[in-house]
Parts: sequence; C-alpha cells; structure tokens
Amino acid sequence: MSTNEDAAIDAVAQILRGQAGITDWQHDLYRTFHQHPELSNQEVKTAERVAQELTQAGYEVTEKIGTTGVVGVLANGDGPVVLMRADMDALPVQEDTGLDYASTATAEDAEGTTVPVAHACGHDVHVACLLGAARLLAEAKGAWSGTFVALFQPAEEDATGAREMVEDGLAETIPAPDVAFAQHVLAFPAGRVSPHPGPFLSSADSMRITVHGRGAHGSMPQLSVDPVVLASAIVMRLQTVVSREVAPDDFAVVTIGRISGGSKSNIIADRAVLELNIRTFDTAVSDRVIEAIKRIATAEAQASGAPAEPDFELFDHYPLTENDADTTARLTEAFTAHFGEAVEDRGRQSASEDFSDIPTALGVPYSYWGIGGIDPDTYAAAQTKGTVDADIPANHSPQFAPVLEPTLSTGTATIVVAALVWLAPEAHAD
Amino acid sequence: MSTNEDAAIDAVAQILRGQAGITDWQHDLYRTFHQHPELSNQEVKTAERVAQELTQAGYEVTEKIGTTGVVGVLANGDGPVVLMRADMDALPVQEDTGLDYASTATAEDAEGTTVPVAHACGHDVHVACLLGAARLLAEAKGAWSGTFVALFQPAEEDATGAREMVEDGLAETIPAPDVAFAQHVLAFPAGRVSPHPGPFLSSADSMRITVHGRGAHGSMPQLSVDPVVLASAIVMRLQTVVSREVAPDDFAVVTIGRISGGSKSNIIADRAVLELNIRTFDTAVSDRVIEAIKRIATAEAQASGAPAEPDFELFDHYPLTENDADTTARLTEAFTAHFGEAVEDRGRQSASEDFSDIPTALGVPYSYWGIGGIDPDTYAAAQTKGTVDADIPANHSPQFAPVLEPTLSTGTATIVVAALVWLAPEAHAD
Amino acid sequence: MSTNEDAAIDAVAQILRGQAGITDWQHDLYRTFHQHPELSNQEVKTAERVAQELTQAGYEVTEKIGTTGVVGVLANGDGPVVLMRADMDALPVQEDTGLDYASTATAEDAEGTTVPVAHACGHDVHVACLLGAARLLAEAKGAWSGTFVALFQPAEEDATGAREMVEDGLAETIPAPDVAFAQHVLAFPAGRVSPHPGPFLSSADSMRITVHGRGAHGSMPQLSVDPVVLASAIVMRLQTVVSREVAPDDFAVVTIGRISGGSKSNIIADRAVLELNIRTFDTAVSDRVIEAIKRIATAEAQASGAPAEPDFELFDHYPLTENDADTTARLTEAFTAHFGEAVEDRGRQSASEDFSDIPTALGVPYSYWGIGGIDPDTYAAAQTKGTVDADIPANHSPQFAPVLEPTLSTGTATIVVAALVWLAPEAHAD
Amino acid sequence: MSTNEDAAIDAVAQILRGQAGITDWQHDLYRTFHQHPELSNQEVKTAERVAQELTQAGYEVTEKIGTTGVVGVLANGDGPVVLMRADMDALPVQEDTGLDYASTATAEDAEGTTVPVAHACGHDVHVACLLGAARLLAEAKGAWSGTFVALFQPAEEDATGAREMVEDGLAETIPAPDVAFAQHVLAFPAGRVSPHPGPFLSSADSMRITVHGRGAHGSMPQLSVDPVVLASAIVMRLQTVVSREVAPDDFAVVTIGRISGGSKSNIIADRAVLELNIRTFDTAVSDRVIEAIKRIATAEAQASGAPAEPDFELFDHYPLTENDADTTARLTEAFTAHFGEAVEDRGRQSASEDFSDIPTALGVPYSYWGIGGIDPDTYAAAQTKGTVDADIPANHSPQFAPVLEPTLSTGTATIVVAALVWLAPEAHAD
Repeated sequence: MSTNEDAAIDAVAQILRGQAGITDWQHDLYRTFHQHPELSNQEVKTAERVAQELTQAGYEVTEKIGTTGVVGVLANGDGPVVLMRADMDALPVQEDTGLDYASTATAEDAEGTTVPVAHACGHDVHVACLLGAARLLAEAKGAWSGTFVALFQPAEEDATGAREMVEDGLAETIPAPDVAFAQHVLAFPAGRVSPHPGPFLSSADSMRITVHGRGAHGSMPQLSVDPVVLASAIVMRLQTVVSREVAPDDFAVVTIGRISGGSKSNIIADRAVLELNIRTFDTAVSDRVIEAIKRIATAEAQASGAPAEPDFELFDHYPLTENDADTTARLTEAFTAHFGEAVEDRGRQSASEDFSDIPTALGVPYSYWGIGGIDPDTYAAAQTKGTVDADIPANHSPQFAPVLEPTLSTGTATIVVAALVWLAPEAHAD
Repeated sequence: MSTNEDAAIDAVAQILRGQAGITDWQHDLYRTFHQHPELSNQEVKTAERVAQELTQAGYEVTEKIGTTGVVGVLANGDGPVVLMRADMDALPVQEDTGLDYASTATAEDAEGTTVPVAHACGHDVHVACLLGAARLLAEAKGAWSGTFVALFQPAEEDATGAREMVEDGLAETIPAPDVAFAQHVLAFPAGRVSPHPGPFLSSADSMRITVHGRGAHGSMPQLSVDPVVLASAIVMRLQTVVSREVAPDDFAVVTIGRISGGSKSNIIADRAVLELNIRTFDTAVSDRVIEAIKRIATAEAQASGAPAEPDFELFDHYPLTENDADTTARLTEAFTAHFGEAVEDRGRQSASEDFSDIPTALGVPYSYWGIGGIDPDTYAAAQTKGTVDADIPANHSPQFAPVLEPTLSTGTATIVVAALVWLAPEAHAD
Repeated sequence: MSTNEDAAIDAVAQILRGQAGITDWQHDLYRTFHQHPELSNQEVKTAERVAQELTQAGYEVTEKIGTTGVVGVLANGDGPVVLMRADMDALPVQEDTGLDYASTATAEDAEGTTVPVAHACGHDVHVACLLGAARLLAEAKGAWSGTFVALFQPAEEDATGAREMVEDGLAETIPAPDVAFAQHVLAFPAGRVSPHPGPFLSSADSMRITVHGRGAHGSMPQLSVDPVVLASAIVMRLQTVVSREVAPDDFAVVTIGRISGGSKSNIIADRAVLELNIRTFDTAVSDRVIEAIKRIATAEAQASGAPAEPDFELFDHYPLTENDADTTARLTEAFTAHFGEAVEDRGRQSASEDFSDIPTALGVPYSYWGIGGIDPDTYAAAQTKGTVDADIPANHSPQFAPVLEPTLSTGTATIVVAALVWLAPEAHAD
Repeated sequence: MSTNEDAAIDAVAQILRGQAGITDWQHDLYRTFHQHPELSNQEVKTAERVAQELTQAGYEVTEKIGTTGVVGVLANGDGPVVLMRADMDALPVQEDTGLDYASTATAEDAEGTTVPVAHACGHDVHVACLLGAARLLAEAKGAWSGTFVALFQPAEEDATGAREMVEDGLAETIPAPDVAFAQHVLAFPAGRVSPHPGPFLSSADSMRITVHGRGAHGSMPQLSVDPVVLASAIVMRLQTVVSREVAPDDFAVVTIGRISGGSKSNIIADRAVLELNIRTFDTAVSDRVIEAIKRIATAEAQASGAPAEPDFELFDHYPLTENDADTTARLTEAFTAHFGEAVEDRGRQSASEDFSDIPTALGVPYSYWGIGGIDPDTYAAAQTKGTVDADIPANHSPQFAPVLEPTLSTGTATIVVAALVWLAPEAHAD
C-alpha cells in the first residue's frame, strides 16, 4: 500500500469521526423523506429540504435545474472535482411495509389519476446518504482539498431527470468534474458494498402498446372485437420472445408492467393498453426484441380481426451504465481498504439508470456501485432456508424496506471513501 | 277483431293526435338528457327534470325512492293500473359519436376515479319516450280511464335500482298495478317494435377476481410472481368455459369487461383485477360456468406459484326477464294492429335487466319489449353489404347513437298503445 | 286410434314374437362384431358376415357397393319400399372398457400407421339390430307386405361411405324406397327411444391445418420458428371463435381432435399439424367459423415469424341431418304406441352423420332417431349423484360400452315398428 | 515457441502430407455414412464399416462395446495414450437438403413407429474425420510415438451410448488414456476451429409429460376434458418458465420438441403427450426449472378439471461438458500454430453431449471443440445480409448440410494436431 493510500485512509478516518454526531439528524431526514415521497418531476418539497440542508452546510446551491434538480458545490482549495449524484423521486406504489414511518401519500400522476406514492426504490436512502456525506465533508474541510459537487436529480424513474439537468445547463452551473459517482441501495445485506467494472446496469426501453378492438355490450361478444382477450393473447405470446427468440446466452427481459382495458364488467371496451419494459446489455438484442414485440402485437391484432393495427410508443429510454474500469479499480481498492470483506463484486444488475447521461454529457469517467439495504440477520436466515428470492422484498416491491442501519452509515461512508480517492491531500498527484 | 279492440284503436289514435305538438319539446328533452348523462345512483339532475315535467303534466309525483327514483301517478277514473318503467342512468364510456349534442361529461365513479360518462345504452331514449307518453295521456284524459304510473328508475346499469325502489317502499307509494311494462332501444331499425313471449333477457352476474402475485422491479422477473401474466393466462383459459364446458346448445356468455394490473412499465405489481360478466338463460348453466371460472382462476394462480388464492366477489346480479305469455300476446296483437309489419318478434336478447325485480316484488305480470334505434336506411345499406355486425354500433359501444326519429315517436307510441290495451274505455271488461 | 294403427300394432306384435328365438344368435353376432372392429373402408369381414346372414335369411344380397357396402332386399308382395340403414365401421381408438369381449385389434390407417381399432361409436349395435330386424321380418312374412331394404354402409366415420354407395350405383341396385330410416345408439338409458322432427344432427366439416416453422436443435430456439408453440397458440386462440365470435344463441363446436408436432424432445421440428372438427346447424355460422379459423391460424403464423402461411385442407364434410316432419310424426306415434313412456324427444344432437346423403340422392323423406345404450340403473345412479357427464362414457370415448340388453332388443324392435308403419297390411292406404 | 512445439509442428506436417492421398476415400466414406444413417443403438452397418476400416489401417479393433460401440487401438511405442471419440448415430428427421447423396432411409424407432432417418446432426462428419485421422496416423508411425485410441460411440442422441460403453467394460478394453478428445461440426464456416475452456456444452434433461383428459365425441366438448387444449395451455404457460422464473443472467432452455394428442379430428382423446428438453449450465437452475414445469403442468390439469394429475418421466440425461482448462490451453496453442486465424473461441454452446461420461469414468482430463461445417461464402453472404439465423440451417434442421470441404480435411487435421500435442516425439517430456 502506497503512502497516498495511507494518507487517504487517514483523511477518511478523520472525516468519518463526525458520523456519530449526525446520526439522529440523518435518521430524521431519512424518515421524513420516506414518509413524504414525491413522484418524478414533483420532488418540490424534497428539493427544498435538500437545498436548505446544503445551504446550511455551507454549499453554494443552485435549484430547479431540470424541473426540481439541485446542485451543491463545496470548493475547498486546489484539487480534483468529484461529482456524486443522488436521485430524489418515488414511485406510484402503495407502500405495504408496516413501518411506523410508512408513506400514506397520494399524488396525481402525469395522466391526472390519483395514485399512491412510496419510496419503494430507496431513493430516500440515496438522498439521506449524500446529504450526510456532504455535511461530513463540509465539517472536516481540513482533511481534504478540491471540490465536491453534490447533485440531486429528479425523475430517474421515468429516465428523464439526468437528461433534463444536462439540457438545462448543468455544465455551466458546476465546475467541470474529473470523475462522477452514483450508488444504489439493493436487496443484499446492509453494510456491504458491491463495485463492478464494465457493464453494470442494463439499458432499458419502455413501450406503450394500444390495441384497438370494437366495443359492444358485454352480452354480445359476436358484435365486438374484444380488446381484453387481444391484450391477454399478446401478453401470453410475448413470453415467447425471451423463451424462444433470444439466444439463451443473451440477457433480455420483457416485462409487461401494466395492462389496462375496459371500465366495467358488462361492457366490452374498444381498446386496451399494455406498458412494457425491455432490458438488455446489447443493442442488437434490444433491436431484435423490439421488432419481435411489434410483430407479435400486430399479428395478434389480425388474429382478433381488429379494426386497426396497434399503436406503439417507445418512452423512458435508459442508457447502458458501463463503469469505467480504471475508476472502478481505484474505488474497489479504497472500499476494500476501508470496509474489508464487506466489499464484494456481486455482478452486473438487471436494473437500469439514467445517471450515465450526466457523465456522458460532461465527458468524464464514472462508476456506479451498489450498497446493501437488508437487515443482515434477516438475510442470513433467508439464505439458510434458501428463500432469499421469496422472503426478501426487492426494489419496487411494496414491501421493500431498507433498515436504517447499517444502511445509512455505510452509504454515507462509501461516498466519503470514494471522494477521498481523488480529494485526499496526497491523492492529487495520481 | 272485437269491438274492444276497435275502441282501443280509436282511443290510441285520439291520444297520438297530440304527438305533433310535443315533438320539439321531446327532442329538446332528449338532447338535454343525452348531453348531461349521469352515472348510476347519481341521476340527480335527470330525476329533477323528470319530476318537474311530470308535475307540470299533472301527475302526482314522488321523488327519491331508492336514491333518485321518481314515480308519477295519474289517476283518471275507474279502471286498471298500468305501470311503465324507464331507467335513467348512463355509463362510464367516452362517447365517440361525433354528434353535436354528444356528451363530454365526466364524473367520479364509485371508487373515486374520474371517468367519462355517456348514454351509450340509450336510457335517455327511454326517459324521453316515457315523459312524452305521460304527457300525451295527461293531455287526452277523455280517451281512457284507469291509472297510469310512470316510473323512472335509477341504477339499472349496476342492477341495484329496481331492488332499491322496491326496498324503499315502492309498493306503499303507488296503487297496486295490474300489469307492468318496460322497453329498450336496440340496434335494429328505428320504427320497428319487437315483443317476445317467455325468456326475453338473460340473467347476469358480475364477478370480480383479484389475483395475487409478488411485486418486484421490472428487471427482476425471477423475484416476482407476475400478476399481469397470471391475469392474462386466466383470460385465455376462461375462453374454454364457453368453448369446451358449456353444451353447444346452451346459451352462455363469459365476458371479461375489465382487466387492470400494474401502474408502470418497469414495476411488476403484486395484484391484478379482472371483472367478468356472465349471462345465461338457465341457473344450472350459470352455476356450472361460475364453478368453472373459479376452478380455472384458482389453478392458474397455482400455475404461477402465487402466494395466495384469488379473491372472488360476485356483484350486479340481474334476474332473468321472462315475459308473461298472455300479457305479451295481448301487446303483440295491439302493436301489430297499430304498427303493422313494423312489429316482429326478433327473439330473445342476450342483454340483462333488473326491471323484473319490480313486477316480481309487486306480484304482477309483465312484458318487456324492444324498439329499434338505428336509421333505417343506414341499417338497410349495412344489411345489403352484409356488414350489420361490423358497421352498426350496438348498445354500450362508444359509437351507439340512436336517431331521434322515428325512434322517439315510435317509443312514445308503443307506451300509449300498450297502456290502452288495459286503459281503453272498453278494455276494462277483459 | 285408427284401425290402421291397430293393425300395425298387431303385425308388430306378431313379428316381435320371434325375438326370444334370436337372442343368443344376435348377442353372439354383436360380440363378434365388437371384438373384430374394422376401420372405415376396411369393413371386409364385417361385410362378409352381414352378406352371409342376409342370404341365409332369404334376402337378395348385393355386395361391395362403394368399397364394402352391402344391401339386402326382401320383396314381400305389394306395398311400399322401406329402407333401413346401418353403418359398419369402427374407430382408431384403444378400447378401455374392461369387457371380456373388448377389442384388441389394430390396423393400418390411411396413412400407413398402425393404430388400435374399436367400436367406440356403437356401429356394431346398429349392424346387429338391423340383422336382427331383417331376420324377424323374413321369418314373419305373413305379417306384412311390401319391400324391406336392409342397407349396410361403410365409412360413416370419414363421411364418405353414403356418398360412395350412391355413386357406385345404389339407385340401380335397389327398388326406389318410399322412406328411409337410420338410428344411432347414444349415451342415454337403454330401452329408450328418441325421435326428433327437423334438424337432428349437425353438419360437420373437418379441417387439417399444417403450420410451418423452422427446425433447429432443441438447445437453439433462437434459430428456430417453433411449430409446437405456434400450434399451441393456435389451439388457445381458436377457443375464442366459439366464446367470442359466434352469437351465444347460435350452435357451433370447434374441436381440435388431433395435434401432432415433432418427433423427439431435443429437436425443434419444422411443422406441426392440427385436425379440427367444426359443427353447426347453419351454413352462415359455419362459414363465419371457418373464416375465423383461417384468419387466426394465418395471423398466429405471422406472430411466430413463420416462413410460410399455414396450409388448410377441408375434408370429411357431413351434411345436416334434417328429419322430415311428417315422417317423424308418424314414427313418434308408432314408437309411443309400442314403447310407451320410453319414447321421449331428447332434442337435437351435436353429432353428425352422412346417412342423409342416401335419401337426398334418392329423393325420399327420411327420419333418424336415437336409442339408448347405457345400463338404466347405472344411468339413474349417476343422475341421482348429478354426475352423468363425468361418469357415463359417451360415444367415441375409449370407455363407451353399450349394455347388450335392453339395447339390442330395443334397437331391433324400433326397426320393426318403424317399418310396419309403412308395411303393415292396412297401412298401405295412407 | 519452444523446441517441443516446433517438433510437434514438424510431425503434424509430416503426417498431414498424407491427406491428399485419402481425400477420395474419405469423401466416399462420408457420402456412404450420410446416405445410410442409423438410429441410436442401431448403428450396425456403420459400426461394421468402421471396424473394417480400422482393421485395414492396422488398428487392434474391439466391436460391440455397449451395443454397437467400436474401439481401435494403435500402440506405437512409448508415450502417452490419447483417446479421440466420434459418435455414430443419426436422427429421426426427414432430410430436406436436396443433396444427391441425401438420405431416404427409414427405420423403426424404439416405440416401433417407422420414422425417417438422417444425419441431421453431422455425426457422419465425426466418423469420417476420425477414420481419416486414424489412417493418417497409421500411415506415418515414424512421426510420433505413444498410443492412439479411436473410439466410435453409439447412441449419443439419447444420451446412453457413452455410459453403456463404460458399463460394458471400456476401461478393461483399452489402455488407460492420458487425455480424451471429441469434436462436433457446427453451423459456422468450414475451415474454422473453436476451442473453449471451462463449461462448453450444457447439461440436458428430457421430460415426458402425459396429461389425462376425458375422451368424448368431437361434437360434445361438454362431456370431455379436452387433452389437446390442456396440452396447448401447458405449452403456452411453460414459456413463462424462461421468461419470468429464470434470472435473465442465467442460461436456461425449455424446448417442447414433441406434442401429440388425439388421432382423428372428430374424437376428443383422453390423453396427450409432451416431450420437453431442458438445458442449463447450473444444477440449481435446472432444479428450479424442472420444479416449475411440474407445478405448471399439474396446475393446468386442475384448470382443465382433469381426472388425474399428469405423469412426469425424466429421461436422456446429459452431463455438463466442462473442458479442462490446461488441456484446452495446450490445444488452443497448437490449433493456432497450425490453423492461424481460423481458430477462435466462439463461446460455450447450448447443445449437450454424453461424451464426458467416458473421461469422467476413466478419470482423465478432456477437451471438446467445435469445427465449422458451412460453406464459407454462403456464410459470409448471410452475415453481410444479417440473415445468418434465418438462412443457415443449424444442427438437427432437416436442411443441415455440411460442405464436404474444407469440413472433412479440417476436422481430420484437428485430430492429428490435437493428438500430436501429446504424441509428438518431443512432447513426452511435458
């Protein structure tokens, strides 16, 4: 281990000495965010609180970049510029965790429907950890030098927030970073950290298929083209895209997240809607899958004798998240020095993210890592029973509920450790 | 033809002489109802207008029987009591007729969702015709004697309105009828009338099936039990109930009018809902169908490895509408005497109605007939092309649009003709 | 009751007095036919035995009309000519009745495949009854006058035998009949008889659909177009023809009797075959159904990305069997006079027959009736338990097993009774 | 490059100088095998010819090891023992290549059905190459020393041949090998070679599912439990095993290679059979898949109201083929030295093999590689058009047709090159 690394370890230790002092504040913050989730591009109160906390910690704050985005910049002398990003939005999910701080919030979604809202994806963890790390760095400015940029992004869940911040002038708002980071809480034991070089998160596309039938009274099917049967036939047939058309060695997911047709048991409606999500690690596979979906839906409409072809609308495109090998190697070394055996490359994840739109636009290398959020004892028990998949609710589940600790303290420390690889006094020579 | 019948014909002619004078008023009424449809049990403005018109015509009016039900009684000397019923409620359908008086209304449905509302079932025709006939009878009291009861029922579309009026004291509100009638506008040529003895409208049941899956991130299907796939598999399998389990000579309809699962393309939800409608003319068939549906949905949940069995909820039960043979024979004779070849028994209908709950509760014979609502030339053209099913929108279709005439004048005259079979001066001896 | 009818009853009684004397012979005959079933157009031994028995009874016999058809003519003085037909062929079914005279026969079918053969449709009953009646009539020639034609038809099961007999010169072989009859043993209590005027048996068409995929190694689905998945998708989608496209008041059956694709678990084949059977009582419905089937199969091939459209081949067309009203009325009266309450019109049957090709070609009225074949006690027990459908194996089931008595004696007597309506001495005046 | 390697290269060159002299003989051999394919465990004539050729070349030959297996041993002084295996059996496939030496053979399969037979998997290539290499090695004994074992295995296609040879005393028949090889012709350009370390071929299991329905006449579906619909529903539902239950990063294939139900369009049969093939690279995945298949088939039988649960029968188990890393590295180096850029690791293959049962039983390291069989120009043209998957028939396709050259000469050379890594005079020191 080099002197530089020793210096970074010392500096990290010095900064993290402040953790004990911010625990109550951070837990309160987390519970507040958790209990008051906001949908994509509606993160108004979350952003206000974020800006207020950053300002209080001494950051120079810019608000409302790309709807509700917030950036805090802490310039602390010479040295590299490190950007850390957290996403702020929640999901239209009815929380079912039984927590005393569970969300009961509702909101109007983009189509004007009132929906439940919950932090079922754990973005509240990301926000609380980044605010914690930002505060610790501000409170120990003597231990490092350079510039730390804390970026809070809206609308990750519909893949628009990162791009909107870029398009709204992010590059002119912050100093040019040397490196960019992001992290995500995942369904593995809290306290653990998972860095991974290369492709880490899949690309994703969403597709809305509207099928057209012919409405009729529910008692006269012979006068109708039944859109519920048509939509269901498409769902069943779409299973063959992954099972028969994609090579078994290629990664592909086709999820139909939403189906909706008709309003009443005794009326045959004249249309139905499917909303699909497509994940791959390879554009050729993605193209083949999208083509197959269109072929199947079009043919099923013909099988039904539908009066019109289906409408296809692609939306929520997520880029591939491909971690820079060198950056990730340096992070992995630093994480391992700090966390020891808790660091393990758990492999690429099937989820997707729009984070990479930011470093790609800014032209900087990036790395994105996972942190655990599940109570270690609970996880170990499920592992012993072989019931991890069944018993441990994962992200987006109504039961997804990260334990406060060691999730928050670990997620906070990872940011400090990662930042200090670049910002430790002796690291600048690298 | 007997003297009685001649007398009835004369009386009818005398009353219907008033039709020319009420046409503008009736058309205005109809357009107003059509443009301002109200959902089941929300027929407040419709009921107010009905009550106002009946009062103005000289009827003794009782309001708010079973939520919004209205009854007008015109006692006109000795003689039988004839009850005619019209239903007032509209449907959660987005009208797509292109009419200049098309509905753009919306309302909150029973679950608090804002939905479009339209008279896609033609109840506005029923109300306008009954108000017209009520006025004509009031304006020609010299031509008949007895009592005419004009009953305006709420909530036919959820099968509760008739029963609610009965339970809210209908029997105590009106004189005991000798006979009860109802009619429905259907997708055959306007100007035509279709009486039918015996079973005329099917019994119907609705069933809500809630299937339980396990929610997960859209990219991790292996952690989920996908409720959209489960619901779709049930839809496809339910087709076999009619195609394989019901004898081909037995009448049965299983329509899945509504399917709903998930809220977002990239989240696998933890449940989905199907709403079914079941029609038969035979309780044994109905029992077998319901049992088969439960068996299939339960087994499909097992095929999915679902964490819980589906929930089944029966609702909106409609009784069989079985026209009294003798009453219908008398009506058919009178209709034929008046309308000539325009009268034809077009057979039983697959639709359902709760009307019969009223005469059944009151212990009186009843008959329910159909009147045409489609422009005769349009219908004839479609018939020539063999495209009636494809080109003529039927009840509950967003494009269902009865022509004003001869629909309204015919629907009005049928009531007068029917009533006079009992109320013509010489008819009382029967 | 007229004198004629009394005379007929006397004559019937006189003829049937012979039944006791032929029982052993008839039971032996039946068991022999049952144990040695022959496929369509392979009824060589059956026909030989039939010809031998007819000859022995004094009939003038012609063999090999339309492959293996046999006709016996007994001219017995002046009077009408009555034709009674029995069909001789068996089915490629593995008998599973447990009877000590069960068939263990196999044969090569038309495609050269070795298949099991069994009288799972009961044609052995028809042959044994007609031979019995033919003998009784021959033994009591004094009780009647006219001509009795006993016709034994091949290949009813593939709808070709009747037409082939006609085309092979049947009209030139036999005297012109005045009336023609046929009967079928069905899954209702033995001893009972079911005549029915008007449409009695459905029209039927068979269709072979060959779908084309692309073969590949079983481990490389992405290189294939999987014909097993394609065929299965078609099967599931075809259920919607009856459940959604045919009016619930119209009779239609779409059965996929055979599916066959692939030869080995680990090879994806390049084609699969479906064999369908379509039943209706109405050509318009039949046309709509066939069109829908083609539309669905074609579209499903497109959904699979199939390299070619499916091939469609119609075969085994069965005409509608529509009983002459007057003839049936006379039969019903005579059956009721003889069998009393055992006669009941059990309604039209969904099965099909090519028998009517014969009277249609000959220009004579006809009637076709059903006789019961199930042990009355077994049937009654199932009825009490409400398990008739589950417990009573019907025609074409591997477990279908008519009881010898009273099936054979009743089926024999029906023929005598029917014939005597025309052939009783006093009946000629009619 | 070491002296040893140079020596091996010299020795290889010396041996392969004989290739020109055996080309006509080898092409004749190949065409003969191709035109006279034999099913698994019926490779009698193939084995006879193999034994005859080996004997003629000077090998000590043992026949009928495990039904039709043949081993030839050529002891040539001191040195390692190298075993090379070829499989001899063909498939029940109707060849559709249009070649003038295409197979028109038929045979009785294990169930007594007459089926077409073809070398659709290319085992004829394997046999011809190994006989060629065996002859070349025998003709140039001065160029190497040690022992070469040429093993010809029956019944690879049903996964039994390797095990049967082991159980029939293979270890006692041949000297203990130091290393074992096998190769397979695949659908990539002829002339190319693809070695791969680690897991190379998947494990595979076949499963027969017999579903039980209730037979009935085709016109009476209500009396039946339709096994064709049941089997088809299972096929559609099984697609969800791979699409929803297996993690998208895990390899799994579920192919239903055979479906068979019913014998006639108008009979509803009482059972249907599915034959599945399951491929994975991981026992845990395989277990999960098999469990899911059973769960789905059992539940679908319940959905149909089937009278009995399905029967499940596992057969044709293939082990994982996992190439020894060190052995494969040495082969790859030698192949590259000889073939240059034609050598490329094309990754693991989804196919399966029972070859590894032999080295596993003998306790020796092994490596299995692929050789191309497609005309390079044809392949390049398809690649340019992006239609490789559609245009290039793969193994088990009726159109699979390796080009004679450079397929046979390359496949022959690979064996010599591989053997000489161990058997070149200077290689023994390794």
